[in-house]
Amino acid sequence: MLGAHEVLSEMSITRREFSRLGALALAAQAFPSVSGVAQGADRRVGYCVIGLGRIANHFLRGVAESSTSKITGLVSGHRGKAERIAQQYGVPKSSIYSYEEMDRFRDNKSIDAVYVALPNSMHAEYTIRSAKAGKHVLCEKPMSVAVSEAEAMIAACKANNVKLMIAYRLHYEPITLKTIKMIRDGAIGTVQAFDSSNGFNIAPGEWRSTKALGGGGPLMDVGIYSLNAARYLTGEEPERFTAVASTIDHDGRFNDVEENLSWTMRFPSGAVASCSTTYGAPMPGYYKVFGSKGWLEVASFGYQGQHLRASYSPGGRGTPATTVDETNPEQDPMHFVRQADHFSRCILENQTPDTPGEEGLRDMQHIQSIYRAAGISMG
Amino acid sequence: MLGAHEVLSEMSITRREFSRLGALALAAQAFPSVSGVAQGADRRVGYCVIGLGRIANHFLRGVAESSTSKITGLVSGHRGKAERIAQQYGVPKSSIYSYEEMDRFRDNKSIDAVYVALPNSMHAEYTIRSAKAGKHVLCEKPMSVAVSEAEAMIAACKANNVKLMIAYRLHYEPITLKTIKMIRDGAIGTVQAFDSSNGFNIAPGEWRSTKALGGGGPLMDVGIYSLNAARYLTGEEPERFTAVASTIDHDGRFNDVEENLSWTMRFPSGAVASCSTTYGAPMPGYYKVFGSKGWLEVASFGYQGQHLRASYSPGGRGTPATTVDETNPEQDPMHFVRQADHFSRCILENQTPDTPGEEGLRDMQHIQSIYRAAGISMG
Repeated sequence: MLGAHEVLSEMSITRREFSRLGALALAAQAFPSVSGVAQGADRRVGYCVIGLGRIANHFLRGVAESSTSKITGLVSGHRGKAERIAQQYGVPKSSIYSYEEMDRFRDNKSIDAVYVALPNSMHAEYTIRSAKAGKHVLCEKPMSVAVSEAEAMIAACKANNVKLMIAYRLHYEPITLKTIKMIRDGAIGTVQAFDSSNGFNIAPGEWRSTKALGGGGPLMDVGIYSLNAARYLTGEEPERFTAVASTIDHDGRFNDVEENLSWTMRFPSGAVASCSTTYGAPMPGYYKVFGSKGWLEVASFGYQGQHLRASYSPGGRGTPATTVDETNPEQDPMHFVRQADHFSRCILENQTPDTPGEEGLRDMQHIQSIYRAAGISMG
Repeated sequence: MLGAHEVLSEMSITRREFSRLGALALAAQAFPSVSGVAQGADRRVGYCVIGLGRIANHFLRGVAESSTSKITGLVSGHRGKAERIAQQYGVPKSSIYSYEEMDRFRDNKSIDAVYVALPNSMHAEYTIRSAKAGKHVLCEKPMSVAVSEAEAMIAACKANNVKLMIAYRLHYEPITLKTIKMIRDGAIGTVQAFDSSNGFNIAPGEWRSTKALGGGGPLMDVGIYSLNAARYLTGEEPERFTAVASTIDHDGRFNDVEENLSWTMRFPSGAVASCSTTYGAPMPGYYKVFGSKGWLEVASFGYQGQHLRASYSPGGRGTPATTVDETNPEQDPMHFVRQADHFSRCILENQTPDTPGEEGLRDMQHIQSIYRAAGISMG
């Protein structure tokens, strides 16, 4: 627990800003209740969205459809844009903050949690500032741009007694959950190998192709889906990594980060994985898992349309096969509804999210290992 | 050119066998004509099939449908089986040879070429013996189990003025050829990344899971399809390799060779590849190629049913996409018809095959590099 002076100095707010904070409000935020959610008739968790880019729009639409969550604040550098969105989602103007004045939301009781939808390199700062303001944090992936940052984020949320969830929306998507269950139940037998790729052809000028904001290249941004899938499907942490990276297009898009990266992983069980990612080509996301009794594949890491195909022989090699061909019919923003619902329930019921900060930290550690194997320095 | 004594000693035939060979016939075989095919009304190339296992059966059926080729000899350790097959394909009993007496076929004028369909570790010996007997050689892949063997095979065929083709049947398959042409014509733009896998769940007791006969594990036997595809699709030779290998099932099948292997490759252009192979799981063969303007994928390295799907935007990123969805309707043994036709025409017209020994040698060199990267010794 931090004293008022420590909170003040660590938050780097000005003395003038401090003077606006009542001592009582400050004390209340420094010692938040477990849930942090106001008791009463409306038990919906109030979210402040930090960063109003593309993915924030999906989240806003998802929360609007959720019965557990609501939008109660916005943080943006564009006041006009924020005011338009605030009106759309019923957020009072007084709950719109600039990045500089964001820390003031500590005494906005309608804000229980934040959704950090900023460029990757800003995740750590805004997660830690939010935690120090007593807000639970739902942070986009990748969690951070360095392992040390991820550790600091976890520590800050712990110290401030707030929950931290990384927005791995596929962990809450029915086809993904079914696939994980099939593997755990032994449908395809012992997992031997895993293939996955995910990438896209990036437009010039995107923040994600700068090391300053993206923190890395396609591995950090979209390859993380393949890495994370390999982990949730095998239920194991990879222990050996190899990688090759390259840049083909010297057209200004890849001055900072790799264009292409292929890597392998080996898991403690012996399962092996081969994956690729790119910022230089359309590369629709997919994974395939090969087990001793059969295989399964899921197409798309996108916001909708997860499609599972499987073929496996319960009796083993050479016996008749069972096939599965199933698509999740839900439309965007249903992933975001499910994700917000999960975190809100964790907040309301004081549970640990299925994808806590530690889940994001492991991906950051593995991304670091992959980059090292490719001869690329991270952070 | 070799003298009679050298031929004798290098062929390791017995003096008794030698006494059966006329000096004239020996001389004729030591100095064969360029084509080696008898001139006359029937210009079909006569093949002697060496090894009567599963793949030989496909080849026999393919040649039976070919207008350029015919079966004129068999080499087998099973006389009864060979006689049954000989009757089926109209081969005289006098053209059936045991492995020991095979070299006698040098004076069988009906045999222009051989098809080496033996376990991998026997490819080199039987290719070299056939070359020394003046027969053109169509050899199954992998060409050999060591780089030095592949080099010796090429040298022997050159020294004996016979042609050598490696049986990369997909190089003669229409969907594969269309895919290669699409990439060369720039349909999907600059190739950035390549994914491929191919494997199967091997039964106990197969020769291919012994190092003595298979020479290696699934990489050598079926992973070679992914390697070879990456090369014919990019038109480049990989220059950097990484790999991880593992064995999960300690059930006697993998005492000698790896069960699973994932690897990456980088090509001089910067294109990267991620591939997997296994003997521990059904792993239907496929490849995907990701270019700056779109992607394509082909399912199956098998004997029929190659299915191409593609989506690419001729105008580049963000412009309307052209899609392709096409299957080769031909049935097995059409791959083998096309393959035999190609080699027979090369023999009849004195051309170099599209997949000469050098093509097989390159795969052997790359397989050696992949095994080295995985910490596995080859050969």
